Amino acid sequence: MTRPWEDAGLLSPVRAGTPVEAVVGDRAWLQAMLDAEAALVRAQARLGTVPEGAARAVSNAARAERLDLRALALAARETANPVVGLVQALTRVVAAQDPAAAEYVHRGSTSQDIFDTGAMLVADRALRLIRADLDRTAVALAALAERHRDTLIAGRTLTLHAVPTTFGLKAAGWRTLLLDADERLARVQESLPVSLGGAAGTLAGYVEYARLAAGEAGPSAPGGPDDNPPDPGPPGADRSGVQGFDVAGYSERLLEAFAEETGLRGAPLLPWHALRTPVADLGFALAFATGALGKIAVDVQSLARTEVGEVAEPSGGAGRGASSAMPHKRNPVLATLIRSAALQVPALAGALGQCLVHEDERSGGVWHAEWQLLRECLRLTGGAAHTAVELAEGLEVRAERMRENLALTGSQVVSERIAAVLAPRLGKAAAKELLTWASVTADRDGRPLPDVLAEAPELAGVMDAAEVASLCDPAAYTGAAGPLVDRALKGTP
Amino acid sequence: MTRPWEDAGLLSPVRAGTPVEAVVGDRAWLQAMLDAEAALVRAQARLGTVPEGAARAVSNAARAERLDLRALALAARETANPVVGLVQALTRVVAAQDPAAAEYVHRGSTSQDIFDTGAMLVADRALRLIRADLDRTAVALAALAERHRDTLIAGRTLTLHAVPTTFGLKAAGWRTLLLDADERLARVQESLPVSLGGAAGTLAGYVEYARLAAGEAGPSAPGGPDDNPPDPGPPGADRSGVQGFDVAGYSERLLEAFAEETGLRGAPLLPWHALRTPVADLGFALAFATGALGKIAVDVQSLARTEVGEVAEPSGGAGRGASSAMPHKRNPVLATLIRSAALQVPALAGALGQCLVHEDERSGGVWHAEWQLLRECLRLTGGAAHTAVELAEGLEVRAERMRENLALTGSQVVSERIAAVLAPRLGKAAAKELLTWASVTADRDGRPLPDVLAEAPELAGVMDAAEVASLCDPAAYTGAAGPLVDRALKGTP
Amino acid sequence: MTRPWEDAGLLSPVRAGTPVEAVVGDRAWLQAMLDAEAALVRAQARLGTVPEGAARAVSNAARAERLDLRALALAARETANPVVGLVQALTRVVAAQDPAAAEYVHRGSTSQDIFDTGAMLVADRALRLIRADLDRTAVALAALAERHRDTLIAGRTLTLHAVPTTFGLKAAGWRTLLLDADERLARVQESLPVSLGGAAGTLAGYVEYARLAAGEAGPSAPGGPDDNPPDPGPPGADRSGVQGFDVAGYSERLLEAFAEETGLRGAPLLPWHALRTPVADLGFALAFATGALGKIAVDVQSLARTEVGEVAEPSGGAGRGASSAMPHKRNPVLATLIRSAALQVPALAGALGQCLVHEDERSGGVWHAEWQLLRECLRLTGGAAHTAVELAEGLEVRAERMRENLALTGSQVVSERIAAVLAPRLGKAAAKELLTWASVTADRDGRPLPDVLAEAPELAGVMDAAEVASLCDPAAYTGAAGPLVDRALKGTP
Amino acid sequence: MTRPWEDAGLLSPVRAGTPVEAVVGDRAWLQAMLDAEAALVRAQARLGTVPEGAARAVSNAARAERLDLRALALAARETANPVVGLVQALTRVVAAQDPAAAEYVHRGSTSQDIFDTGAMLVADRALRLIRADLDRTAVALAALAERHRDTLIAGRTLTLHAVPTTFGLKAAGWRTLLLDADERLARVQESLPVSLGGAAGTLAGYVEYARLAAGEAGPSAPGGPDDNPPDPGPPGADRSGVQGFDVAGYSERLLEAFAEETGLRGAPLLPWHALRTPVADLGFALAFATGALGKIAVDVQSLARTEVGEVAEPSGGAGRGASSAMPHKRNPVLATLIRSAALQVPALAGALGQCLVHEDERSGGVWHAEWQLLRECLRLTGGAAHTAVELAEGLEVRAERMRENLALTGSQVVSERIAAVLAPRLGKAAAKELLTWASVTADRDGRPLPDVLAEAPELAGVMDAAEVASLCDPAAYTGAAGPLVDRALKGTP
Repeated sequence: MTRPWEDAGLLSPVRAGTPVEAVVGDRAWLQAMLDAEAALVRAQARLGTVPEGAARAVSNAARAERLDLRALALAARETANPVVGLVQALTRVVAAQDPAAAEYVHRGSTSQDIFDTGAMLVADRALRLIRADLDRTAVALAALAERHRDTLIAGRTLTLHAVPTTFGLKAAGWRTLLLDADERLARVQESLPVSLGGAAGTLAGYVEYARLAAGEAGPSAPGGPDDNPPDPGPPGADRSGVQGFDVAGYSERLLEAFAEETGLRGAPLLPWHALRTPVADLGFALAFATGALGKIAVDVQSLARTEVGEVAEPSGGAGRGASSAMPHKRNPVLATLIRSAALQVPALAGALGQCLVHEDERSGGVWHAEWQLLRECLRLTGGAAHTAVELAEGLEVRAERMRENLALTGSQVVSERIAAVLAPRLGKAAAKELLTWASVTADRDGRPLPDVLAEAPELAGVMDAAEVASLCDPAAYTGAAGPLVDRALKGTP
Repeated sequence: MTRPWEDAGLLSPVRAGTPVEAVVGDRAWLQAMLDAEAALVRAQARLGTVPEGAARAVSNAARAERLDLRALALAARETANPVVGLVQALTRVVAAQDPAAAEYVHRGSTSQDIFDTGAMLVADRALRLIRADLDRTAVALAALAERHRDTLIAGRTLTLHAVPTTFGLKAAGWRTLLLDADERLARVQESLPVSLGGAAGTLAGYVEYARLAAGEAGPSAPGGPDDNPPDPGPPGADRSGVQGFDVAGYSERLLEAFAEETGLRGAPLLPWHALRTPVADLGFALAFATGALGKIAVDVQSLARTEVGEVAEPSGGAGRGASSAMPHKRNPVLATLIRSAALQVPALAGALGQCLVHEDERSGGVWHAEWQLLRECLRLTGGAAHTAVELAEGLEVRAERMRENLALTGSQVVSERIAAVLAPRLGKAAAKELLTWASVTADRDGRPLPDVLAEAPELAGVMDAAEVASLCDPAAYTGAAGPLVDRALKGTP
Repeated sequence: MTRPWEDAGLLSPVRAGTPVEAVVGDRAWLQAMLDAEAALVRAQARLGTVPEGAARAVSNAARAERLDLRALALAARETANPVVGLVQALTRVVAAQDPAAAEYVHRGSTSQDIFDTGAMLVADRALRLIRADLDRTAVALAALAERHRDTLIAGRTLTLHAVPTTFGLKAAGWRTLLLDADERLARVQESLPVSLGGAAGTLAGYVEYARLAAGEAGPSAPGGPDDNPPDPGPPGADRSGVQGFDVAGYSERLLEAFAEETGLRGAPLLPWHALRTPVADLGFALAFATGALGKIAVDVQSLARTEVGEVAEPSGGAGRGASSAMPHKRNPVLATLIRSAALQVPALAGALGQCLVHEDERSGGVWHAEWQLLRECLRLTGGAAHTAVELAEGLEVRAERMRENLALTGSQVVSERIAAVLAPRLGKAAAKELLTWASVTADRDGRPLPDVLAEAPELAGVMDAAEVASLCDPAAYTGAAGPLVDRALKGTP
Repeated sequence: MTRPWEDAGLLSPVRAGTPVEAVVGDRAWLQAMLDAEAALVRAQARLGTVPEGAARAVSNAARAERLDLRALALAARETANPVVGLVQALTRVVAAQDPAAAEYVHRGSTSQDIFDTGAMLVADRALRLIRADLDRTAVALAALAERHRDTLIAGRTLTLHAVPTTFGLKAAGWRTLLLDADERLARVQESLPVSLGGAAGTLAGYVEYARLAAGEAGPSAPGGPDDNPPDPGPPGADRSGVQGFDVAGYSERLLEAFAEETGLRGAPLLPWHALRTPVADLGFALAFATGALGKIAVDVQSLARTEVGEVAEPSGGAGRGASSAMPHKRNPVLATLIRSAALQVPALAGALGQCLVHEDERSGGVWHAEWQLLRECLRLTGGAAHTAVELAEGLEVRAERMRENLALTGSQVVSERIAAVLAPRLGKAAAKELLTWASVTADRDGRPLPDVLAEAPELAGVMDAAEVASLCDPAAYTGAAGPLVDRALKGTP
C-alpha cells in the first residue's frame, strides 16, 4: 500500500503510468546516483588509482534495492542532500561483502559530483523516452499533413475566420514545432556532462588520492618517492606546488574515463558545480517542448468545441473522456492533459533558469532548489509527449465540418481576395473601403457577401457577378498552403 | 519497498519527514476527496433528500485504505481527473455493504465539486500545521529580539557596513515578516470554501435530485404532485421554469450543510469552478510565507559566512551539517533547505495565479494544472516552516563577533553621524565632502577614521579629538533600534 | 519628438493613452519622490527640528519640471538608484531660492526612504484609477447579469456543451471575481506605508539631526544642555546609550507626521527596507486583478468565435477591430488587449514576490529589481481595467444565437437530467449507461437524443415520449442559476 | 521635456544610457517595422510584381521621424497592434510624394508579418551589441584568469570555506559561462527569420497580388492570360486550384528576397505567426545570458562584503558608488545593477516561453503579450552586458586579503587533504572521524587545527608535526586548478 508520504501520480494524470515515471522517480534517481558512484570507482580503477576488485565490488553493490530509499530521504535533511547518507549506506553494503573495497567508495569525491552526474543520467534516460515520443508524434502529424494537404479549413486569427487555409498546413505547423523541440532537446542531450569537481571544483581530492596511490604521500612523506625529486615537467605546466605528478593529464583522463563509464557525452570545459549551464539548458529545452505540445493541445481544443466540431480526440477505451455526471460528454482529455503540463513546465523551467545565479563554489539553496524542479520538468514533458502520441495517431479529422464552417461567413472569409482583385481597378483604398462596407452590410442583414456586392454601384462594369462568385471559392484562395506543406514535410527528420 | 513510480521525498529534503507530508500526500488527498463525498451525502441527508442510512453507509465506506490509489491515478488518465474513477470505486465499496446506499454516492455532483472541496480540506489541514510552525518560529524570534535588543551589529546595505544596528532589530524584523505571513495565511484559511456547483455551476443536478426526492418528477411527471399545481411563489422569485420547489432556499441550505459537514468556513457568493479566487489566494499567501522564511534564511547565511561568523545554526544531531568530503564543515543546512523552498514556491504560485485565466464553465487544462502546483506549494511551505522552527529555536548568536566585525571599518561605520554633527557647523555639503575624503584616505592608508580626521584642517576649532572619539562609539548611534524592537514585540500575536 | 531612449507605449496598446500612464510614468514617479522629500521636511518642521520656512521652500521647489529627468536617469547608474542625484538636483533648486533651506533637504534620510515612499504614492494614485475602473466594470456587469438573469446559454466544460446555464450567471461570475480583486486591492491600498528607516533602518540619522536641533550635540558637546543631565526616563525605555532625548517618542511622531503629510495610511510596525511586505502584496493583488480581467477576456473570446457568435465587442469608432488586410474582420481587440496584460502581470508579480528574499538591511540588486516590475504591474493592470470598462459597458449579447447553439447537441445537453430522472426508476448505473449509449448513437447517426431514446426498449413503460420531450427543455434545467444571480448581485458593492 | 507618458529609464539604471537603449526603444522599433515594410516592397519589386520606382518611393518614405510615434501608439488600441496605423500613416507619407507608389505599401501583407519582422530586426541589432559586450567582458575575464591563475582564495560552499581554490579558476568559470551564453545567443541570432505569411499564414495575399501583376486576374478574368489555359504542371504539384502561376516558386523566391533585403538570415520552414520558435528561443537565450552575468554579480558581491574584502569594484567617476547618506560607502553598484537585471529577465523570458501555447493561426492576446516582454529582455540584457564590461575590466583583486582570509579557519580549510592522506594509514572512516573531532575541537577552543592534531594519540607514529604542517599549506592543495584554468582559456573564442 502506498504510505502516507508517497506520491503515486494521483494529481498528475498527464504522466501517471507513462514510461517516463519509472526513469525519473525517486528510485530511479537513487539508482542513477549509485551508477555515478560505481562509474567513478571504475574510472579510477581504469587509471590505476583503485584496485580493479574494488571497482567490481562497488559496482555490484550499487543497486537501489539494497538501500532504504525513505531512510535516505529523511537523512538528507541533516546534510541538505541525499548523497552523504547514500555514501554511508553504500559503504556499509560494500563492506558487508568486501571490507577492503569499502575504502574506495566516493574516493576524493563530493556530494555534488554524484548528485549532478546522477541527475544527468536521469535526464539522459528521460530524454530518450521524450524524444522517441516526439518522433512518433511527428510521424503521425506528417501523415495527417500529407493526407489533408488540401483539406480546406478556416484560418482563424483573434478568434475569427480570416482567410481559408488547409488542415494540412496546420498539422505541418504542429510537426515543425515538434521538430524544433526535438532539435533543442537533442542538442542538450548530446551535451549532458558528468560532474567532476571535488569539494570546491579543483579536483583536489581526486588528485590527492591519485598521487597517494602513485606512492607520493605529499611533500614531506618520509621515505616516499619524493626523496628522488621527480621531473618538474615543462616550465609553467604545473605551477600549483604539486610536484612529480601529472595533475593536468590525470584530471583529463579521469574526466574522460568517468564520462565513458557513465555513457554521458558532454565535455564541460570546467567543473560546473556553480556554472549551471546543463541544468538551465535542460529547463529551457523542456519548456520549449511542452510549449510546442501545448500549442497542439490548444488548437485541438479550439477545433473540438461543440460549435466547431472539426476534430475529435481518439475515442480510446470505453470510459475515455467520460464525465462523472454527464453521459453524453466525450471530453478532449488528451489535449487537456497536455495543456496542463504546458501550463506548469515553463514556470518550473523559469525557476531553473534563475538558478544560474549561483553564488560561490556551491550555493546554499540554489543548487538544492533545482532538483525537484528538474525532475518535474522531465516528468511532465515525458507525460505530455507520451500523451501526444496517442492524440496525433488517433485524431479524428472532420473535413466535411471544416468545409461547412468555412461557409459560415457567407464568403466574407475571402474578402481580402476580392479587395486585392479590385485594388488595381478601383485603387487599394477604395477597394478596401468597399469591402468593409459590404461586410458590415452583410453582417447586419445576414446576407451572403456576393449578394451585397451585387448591389454595389461601384462594381458596375468593374466586376460582374460571375467573377465575384468565382472569387468566392475558398478552395481557390489558399495561397501557397499546399507547397508550404510539401516544403515542411521535406524538413528533417 | 518504494515502487518505481513513487516519490518518497528524496529530492525535497526541506519537507522529507516533516508533518506536512502526511496531510498533503496522495493518500491524504484521496482521503480528503472521500471526505468530500461523504460530507455531501450527509448534507443531502440533513436536507431529507437522501436516507440517513445511506449517508452513514457512504461515510463508513469513504476510507482511502479501501481504494487502490495507484489504480485511481492510472484511471485518471482516461477522464483527466481522478474523481470519475473514485466515484466508481467508492460506489463498489458501498454497494458491497449496502447496495441501496450505493445509489446515493455522488448524487447530482460533478468531479470538480469533489476535487476542489477535497483540495480545500487538504489546504486547511496543511495551513494548520504551517501556521503552528510559523507561530513557534515567531515566538523563538521574539525571544531572540528581546534578548538581543541592544546587541550591536553592523547594519549592512549593498553588502557593505552602513551604520550600526542591533541584532534584536534584525530578529524583530524577521518575526514581523512572519506575522505578516501568518495574517495572510489566516485570512485565506478562514475563507476556504467548499465547492458546490454541479456539472456547470448551476447546481442543476443537486436540485433535480432534490426535487425528485420531494416527489416532483418534473413538469410532466404522470401522477406526480404537479397535478396539483404548486404555489408559484412571489413574482420573479423563480423564473427558471421550475415550479413548486424552493430552488433558492434548497441551494443555500445545501451549501450550508455541506460546509458544516466538511468544517470549511468560506462562503463563496457563487460556485467557483471557473472563478479561482481560493486557489490564487492560497498560492499568493504561500509564496509570501516562503518568501518571508527565505528572507530569514539568506540573512542567516549572510551572517554565517566564515568571514562573518556572527551566527551559527543549531548543531543538531551528530551528522548535522556534515559534508561528504570535508570533515571540518558544519554547513548551515537549515537555512539552505528553507532557501531551496523559497526559490521554488513563488514560481509555482505565479503559475497558480495564471490559472485565474480560466475559460468557460470549466477549463480543459487550466484547472488540471493547478493540482500539483498547489500541493507542492503547500508541501514546500510546510517543510520550510517546520525547518524554521528548529533554526529559530536553536540559532547561535555570537555577540562578541558582531562587535569585532563592527570595528572592521575603523569607525567609518559612523561616518554618517559625524557628518550629521558637522553639518550645522560646516554646512551639510562641506561636512559630507570632508567625511568622503576622510573615508577614502582611511581606506587607502589603512588607518582608523578618527586618526585621519585628526589631521583635517577643516576641523580645527570645530570638533576636537575627544568629540570625534565619542561620536565613534557605535553603541551611541543605533537611533531608535531599541524602541523599534519594543514596538515590534508589542505587535500581535 | 520622442527621443531614441524614450518609450511612448508603442508596444503596450493595452495601456497606451489610458489614465494610468500619466500617474506611473517616469515623470510621475519623479514627482512622487519629490513629494516624499517635501513631505519629509514638512514632517520634520511639524516636529520642530526644521524651520517652517525651509519646509515651505523645499515644498515649493519639489516639482518634477524643474529637474532634468533624463539626467537623473543617467546619473542613477553611478549610484544604482535615482535618489542620490535627485537630492543633489533638488538641493540646487532649493539653494537657488533659499540657500539656508537647502541645508534641510533629505535630512537624516536615505535613498530607500524616498524611493519607497514615492513608489507607494505612485501605487496609491494608480490604485485609485484601477479601482474606479474595476468598479465601473462591475456596475456594467451587474446590469448585464440582471438583464440576462434568465438568458439561456450552453454551459461549457472542457470545450464541450455540458448542461444549460444562463448568461446572467456568467456575467455575475465575472463581476464576483472583480469584486474579489477590488477587495484585495483595497486591502493593499489601505495599508500602503511611508518608508522611514534611515541608512540601515534604525532611524539614526533622523534622530541625530533631531537631537542636534534640540540643542544636544551628542555626549561630549561642550557647554551643551547635557551639562544639566536630563531626566533619563522610565527604566528600560531607552537603553541605547542616547540620553536626554525621547527617541521612541520622536520616532513615532515623525512616522505619523510623515504619513500624514503624504496621505499614506499604512502603519508598518518596523522600517521595511528589507521587509518587503508592501511590494509583495501589491504584486499579488495586481496579479489577481489582471487574472480576474483575463478570465473575462478569454470568456468573451470563447463566445465571440465565428462559430459561436454569442457576444460581440462594442463596435467603437470607425476603425475599431480593423485588420490591416481583411476588410470583413472586426476583431475582439478589447479582450485581446486585456488578455495580453493578464499573460504578463502574473509573471512580473511572481518576480516581485521573489524579492521578499532580500538579504541584509538592504539588498544589492533585489530592491533594484522591484522598480520596473512594480511599475509595469501597475500600468498593465491599469490599462486592462480601463479597457474592461469599455468592454463591459458595450458588450453585445446575442441571446438568439445562444439559444440556437444550445440546440446543437440535439438535447444531449440535458442528458444529465434525463439520467437523474431515470435513476430512481432504473437504478443510477443503468440510467447512466442508457444515456451514454443513446448519446453515442445520436452522435453517430446525427439524430436528436429524444428520437434515439424513443426506440430504447428499456424505456418502455418507464418514460414516454412526452416526458422525454418535456425534460429536454433546456430552460427547465438551469438549476439555481437564477437565484444564484440574485444572490451574487446582492453582494457588495 | 519628457512628456507624462514617456519613460526615460529612471527605474532601470542598469540600462539607462547604454547603447542598447537606442536600438530597442519605441522609435527604433518603429523604424524596424518601417524597414520591414520597405524591404517587403523591394523584395516584391525584385520579383517584378511591384514597380522599382514604387519600391524606391516606399524605402525613401519609411523613416520613423516622418511619423507621429505617439499617435501610432494610441491608434494601436483600436486594432490591438501598431501596424494598422503605421500602414495608413506610411501610405499617406508615400502618397504625398508619389501617389501611384502608395498603392504598393503593405501589398498582400498582414500586421504580423511587419511587426514580427521588425521585432527580429530589433533583436538582431540588440544582439550585436550584447554579444560585443559579452565578448569584451570575456576578454577581460580571460586576462584576470591568466593573471590570477595561481592566486589562492578560499573555495566556499554553502557559505563556508571548503578547500582552497584560485581566483583564476573563479574568473575562468565566469568567462566560460559567458562563452556558453554567447554561443546560445549566436545560435539564435543566426536563425532570426523574417516573418512572411499573409493574413493566415498561407501567403495568399502575396500570391494573389503577384498573380494579378503577372496579368492573371483569377479564374474568370476577362481577356486574361487564362484564355490560353496554362500548363497545369506536373500532377500533384499544385492542387490548390491556382493555375498557371508557380505558387511554390514564387513563395520561395519572395521569402528569399525579403530575407536578403532585411539582412535576416534565418530560414523558417513555415510562416511562424503561431509557431513561436524565434521568440521563445530569444527569451531563453537572453535569460541564460543575464543568468550568467548574474552569477558573476553575486560572486563579486560575496567577495566584496566588508568582512571579506577580496575584490572591489572599479572606482569609476567621483560619485560612483556613493550613498545619499553615508560618506564612507563605495557600493558595488555595477554588480547591483547586473543582479537587478538577472532577477527580472528569467521571469520575463518564462512568460515569453509560455507564449508558445498560441492558439489558432494568430492568437488574440498571446502574440500581443510578447512584445513588451521581448523588448524588456533585450534591453535589460543589453544593459547588464554593458555594465559587466566595466565591472570585468576594472575589477580590483586583492590577493593579499584572499590569502589572509584563507588562514581564518586555522588550516581547517585543508582538513579534506589531511583526511585523505591519513585514509590509507588509518582507514577512511577513522581518518574522517579523527578530522571531524579535531575540527570541532579547534573551533571550540579557537586553536589552529595542527595544534589540536598534535595532541591526537591516533597520530602517534602515523603522522608527525612536520608532515601535518606541510599538508596545511593551502598552496599545495589546489588540485588541478591551474591546469583547469589553462584548459578553460584555450576554449573559444
